Amino acid sequence: MLRRTLPRALSSASSSLHGVPLDATSINANVRAAEYAVRGNVLERSMELQRRMAAGEMLPFKKFVPCNIGNPHALLQLPLSFHRDVLALCISPHLASDHPSAFNPDAVERAQKYATEMGGGVGSYTNSQGILAVREEIAAFITERDGYPAYVDRIYLTNGASEGVRMLLTCLLRGGELHDGLLTPIPQYPLYSASLTLLGGTLVPYHLNESMDWGVQMENLAEALATARGNGVEVRGIAVINPGNPTGNILAEDQIKDIIQMAVDNKLVILADEVYQSNIWKEGASFSSFKKVACDMGYHGEDGDERLQLVSFHSTSKGYFGECGLRGGYMEVHGIGPEVRAELYKLASLSLCSNTVGQLAMGMMVNPPKPGDPSYQTFEKERGDILSSLRRRSMMVHKALNEMEGITCNKADGALYAFPRIRLSNKAVQAAADKGIPTDEYYCLKILDETGIILVPGSGFGQEEDTLHFRTTFLPSEDTMEETLKVLASAHNKFMDDHRD
Amino acid sequence: MLRRTLPRALSSASSSLHGVPLDATSINANVRAAEYAVRGNVLERSMELQRRMAAGEMLPFKKFVPCNIGNPHALLQLPLSFHRDVLALCISPHLASDHPSAFNPDAVERAQKYATEMGGGVGSYTNSQGILAVREEIAAFITERDGYPAYVDRIYLTNGASEGVRMLLTCLLRGGELHDGLLTPIPQYPLYSASLTLLGGTLVPYHLNESMDWGVQMENLAEALATARGNGVEVRGIAVINPGNPTGNILAEDQIKDIIQMAVDNKLVILADEVYQSNIWKEGASFSSFKKVACDMGYHGEDGDERLQLVSFHSTSKGYFGECGLRGGYMEVHGIGPEVRAELYKLASLSLCSNTVGQLAMGMMVNPPKPGDPSYQTFEKERGDILSSLRRRSMMVHKALNEMEGITCNKADGALYAFPRIRLSNKAVQAAADKGIPTDEYYCLKILDETGIILVPGSGFGQEEDTLHFRTTFLPSEDTMEETLKVLASAHNKFMDDHRD
Repeated sequence: MLRRTLPRALSSASSSLHGVPLDATSINANVRAAEYAVRGNVLERSMELQRRMAAGEMLPFKKFVPCNIGNPHALLQLPLSFHRDVLALCISPHLASDHPSAFNPDAVERAQKYATEMGGGVGSYTNSQGILAVREEIAAFITERDGYPAYVDRIYLTNGASEGVRMLLTCLLRGGELHDGLLTPIPQYPLYSASLTLLGGTLVPYHLNESMDWGVQMENLAEALATARGNGVEVRGIAVINPGNPTGNILAEDQIKDIIQMAVDNKLVILADEVYQSNIWKEGASFSSFKKVACDMGYHGEDGDERLQLVSFHSTSKGYFGECGLRGGYMEVHGIGPEVRAELYKLASLSLCSNTVGQLAMGMMVNPPKPGDPSYQTFEKERGDILSSLRRRSMMVHKALNEMEGITCNKADGALYAFPRIRLSNKAVQAAADKGIPTDEYYCLKILDETGIILVPGSGFGQEEDTLHFRTTFLPSEDTMEETLKVLASAHNKFMDDHRD
Repeated sequence: MLRRTLPRALSSASSSLHGVPLDATSINANVRAAEYAVRGNVLERSMELQRRMAAGEMLPFKKFVPCNIGNPHALLQLPLSFHRDVLALCISPHLASDHPSAFNPDAVERAQKYATEMGGGVGSYTNSQGILAVREEIAAFITERDGYPAYVDRIYLTNGASEGVRMLLTCLLRGGELHDGLLTPIPQYPLYSASLTLLGGTLVPYHLNESMDWGVQMENLAEALATARGNGVEVRGIAVINPGNPTGNILAEDQIKDIIQMAVDNKLVILADEVYQSNIWKEGASFSSFKKVACDMGYHGEDGDERLQLVSFHSTSKGYFGECGLRGGYMEVHGIGPEVRAELYKLASLSLCSNTVGQLAMGMMVNPPKPGDPSYQTFEKERGDILSSLRRRSMMVHKALNEMEGITCNKADGALYAFPRIRLSNKAVQAAADKGIPTDEYYCLKILDETGIILVPGSGFGQEEDTLHFRTTFLPSEDTMEETLKVLASAHNKFMDDHRD
């Protein structure tokens, strides 16, 4: 029996007799190498400044404006009433009977439905794949969105989308000397680069074209794949972020079709990061899921048909929900056989299950009040207000950035970010080099010190050699946005003046 | 800039030109090899039976009794009122103003304190290490419990304790050809074996002594360490579960002292899994934390003093809270330097933060209402009722098991499980071998088919060669416990009769 618990055969005899303490030299090298810019040096610096401000030091600004991360509620975006009330009822069920007037009947009904389904309520572990009733809501949502069926046994609830991405990559990347790699857009969301480093995989970069609204160019993809294979990398998948983070680009169906065909031809698993699918700002544009386009092309992903392998990710953190802290998310697998699905289930079961409140929030995000429901009007107003304000703010930010010296910025067609290009002087480049930091990080630190506005340097996302960018969310509340942009413009001008060649 | 995102240099040229689909043969072999018995074959079988029952099939029993996992609320243990009300208020803050009579003033006050601290409420990402106010509550709790200071920068909030264990092991195990290993008790909670397999580490087993109440024997430990080193394993740490899972053993301070000294002498990081610290059933026994004993011995873990490296884990899922679904947990590191702490912070930041509701639940678990607070009496009664009922149930289970033919069971001094030894006939061994499954799994499947009671085979936890066990929780509610034990005894008798040599 015991042998079953011994994970690997032992051969070499190189161990130390007195042990090795856990320190910076003996930590897993992949952990040390991983970088996560969204919470990197600029954020560290802002935390130091916050401590100094709290200790009474006078800084050139009164408050911090965290534009480093898509964290809407931290910038006072309000939660939607319906799902919060249902969650409160699930957490304290006595509220419904003690204070019946406090809740709409559809909220009470939904909470009862979830309670019945969960048995022991939010305090119980759920099925490791997630609460069945929630997976049913998700399957219905996908079916309605795409016009093709979705199945509960192919949906996995996760703590945010990040956990799903990591689970999938854990299965996909075999580590060791196999040099398994993932085609990853540049610029990219650093979850991908950091997870690849951590798991011993290889990042295979494909460049998005800034001069074409950050679109995917198939020739770039083909070249990246050929180069990587020439270098001995076993390319196993491709990550696509649509709408794009940090770029804001929305892929057209034709582009998605081309990517799918390329994935089929080259047996690549597509990781479709679609967490911004409700954040569409471009007039007349709409979101098409990879799943929908795949099915249009005849890749229906039935068991036994693994021609196209696709995993799509979604989250409660973005869209109009903005529920980052609840850590709700799911992934849907397509063309992934039952054996691999069972392995994903096992991986999920190692954490027992994702958190129940995040699971329920996801259920309500995909299944909100319908016309005629008592909570519908409020829901629809709250949702509309958030989305239209985000749209206006995206335009404000785009306009203001393009008016600044040395800055050009593509429109954010979708998602929650602008990723402007900045052209800085040789003097600025030299000043950064003197400090031993990337030029864009130097720029962001200067802006932070001057204004309290927290940006993320483009180097954290990857960018074409000899170009510089930063990422900013457009999440500051609408009444403060104009002022924030004025402050940014003024600090930017000061930076440019201070660094003229 | 771009070079920073390329995680590894490439050398060999062995890649395939047409790609490798993700299937059972091409999945990461470590994922495939990992086993997680608590949700293994017996649970799979129970899910199949549940589907059949739901489809109308008549089974020999009316309901399932999931004793496979410590999931108290699923067996109708009630949540405590105070923390659930505070959570409801944090989720729907308007409830406090709209329905002031619904909540005790201390619940309202606590919710306001958390809201102020979080800025954007439960919908915001928090500091990746967790909400500062909660870490302060945890530090105060540890200081009070141990009589030695604890620090917020050494505490990390996690989604349950499992996530903390995995984070720590991810840092500790370097993978590749280094054969890093972890001393792990046998029997153990399979999170350890599965995580080791997944991370490419080596499980170094040390046996707990069943005839001495499952105590740790230092000579077993020394021998396990020497053998592993002789086999070329770099032993980097030791996992200790106290109170024990699945054994229920409570370590005495002297034993803890010996283990600490051994860890110091051999530079082993101690992973102290202390999630059952409130589940102490033995008359006169009390829980001593590894941290407290370490400080008693003079290992205060100041920065620069890494003689003893200790990480302790706690969770909202056990104790009297039983809040499994909320996924609250923390780890405290001790004697771990600032550089490694920064790496742990970075790892945490890759998931952005653990879920906020679980974080707040943890805060209230370690900082419940105090005497004089409006919620105190209710809290104290709820807590007392749960703990005294669990104590009675632990005794009922122990007594009933020992009365069954061929079963001996140590007292569960702590935790939520009994881990009886079963002696089965040659005929039973042969019947299991004919099916190609371990004998104890065969036994548990038979009991399940007959009764709906879900047990976990001892082979899932590891056991001495030629011994057989199973693990059962004692969580069925007190009014059903007698009946459950009767049903189990009767099915056990039938099994014994059916398998006489």
